Amino acid sequence: MARGNKNKKQRHQDLLKIIEENPFLTDEKLAENFKVSIQTIRLDRLELGIAELRERTRTMAQDAYSDLKSIDQQELIGDLLSIDLGKRAISILQTTDQMIFQKNQIVRGHYIFGQANSLAVAVIDARTALTKEAHVKYLKPVYEGERLVAVADVIEQSGDKFTVEVKTTSEGKTVFQGKFTVVVIGEV
Amino acid sequence: MARGNKNKKQRHQDLLKIIEENPFLTDEKLAENFKVSIQTIRLDRLELGIAELRERTRTMAQDAYSDLKSIDQQELIGDLLSIDLGKRAISILQTTDQMIFQKNQIVRGHYIFGQANSLAVAVIDARTALTKEAHVKYLKPVYEGERLVAVADVIEQSGDKFTVEVKTTSEGKTVFQGKFTVVVIGEV
Repeated sequence: MARGNKNKKQRHQDLLKIIEENPFLTDEKLAENFKVSIQTIRLDRLELGIAELRERTRTMAQDAYSDLKSIDQQELIGDLLSIDLGKRAISILQTTDQMIFQKNQIVRGHYIFGQANSLAVAVIDARTALTKEAHVKYLKPVYEGERLVAVADVIEQSGDKFTVEVKTTSEGKTVFQGKFTVVVIGEV
Repeated sequence: MARGNKNKKQRHQDLLKIIEENPFLTDEKLAENFKVSIQTIRLDRLELGIAELRERTRTMAQDAYSDLKSIDQQELIGDLLSIDLGKRAISILQTTDQMIFQKNQIVRGHYIFGQANSLAVAVIDARTALTKEAHVKYLKPVYEGERLVAVADVIEQSGDKFTVEVKTTSEGKTVFQGKFTVVVIGEV
């Protein structure tokens, strides 16, 4: 029992740390990591006052959306998680059975492109921005149900032209990467 | 009156020719070309037994869909107009207000990408094909209501890897072009 309590205390500390570093881990993943049951993780979260994944995502998204400038909230494909205008933006896309090829259950390319492309436009610190060019690579097939985390980084600016790199991962593995040239229309 | 009849006969001949060459011209465009009213074009079509644009598109699409192999009909973005498996495919996408940025009425990039990408997969003569890489350029903004004609040409094959070039036009002007690398999974 004493040992059980020590384990639990340690797990609580680790849990707080791991969720702070990666707020997008599911209870299933956390249970796997800690080699405990999902029920245990749920109880841990309750005791620690950590919201469930959906709620964590929603809260972060609400904070982030108010900073959007070049794109409307509903025009973003995926949920915005954080944005530092002109620098970096992160979104998450929950893939569904609406997005797949019936034949092989693989998520169709334009959804993954759409998440990355809309994020590349969103990160630009201007009222109106449009994609001029994109070079994208699909590195790993994505299946229904995977949660895609896209990170867009502005890596270059030359006048009204921006280069944005987007990397999309699923459970830590890169599934897609793209380089987008985005141009600002009107004032920067 | 004699002159009027001669003009009409000539116009009918020209109309038959122009619609055979480009079945996707609207009555508005045809009226503009012939410098007559839209009503005159409609009467001409009736007399000549030429179906209206929507019907012409639909008939061509039905013929083409039966040849699809790597993609299901509802998975194609746009309407398929013709396909020569392994060589060339053509589709048309009627843009709507569902596809635009509210702010500037410009059609969002992933719809144009989606039409091209799904056509690049559709043209491959195999049961299963996936996009590995794409390099795309947006050359001209597309506004709500424009009809996009995409033509996909297989320009190279190396083993199970195909290079497909897609060019998308609106009223004859190129608005988008892309080079897609498509890979066949399993048998070619």
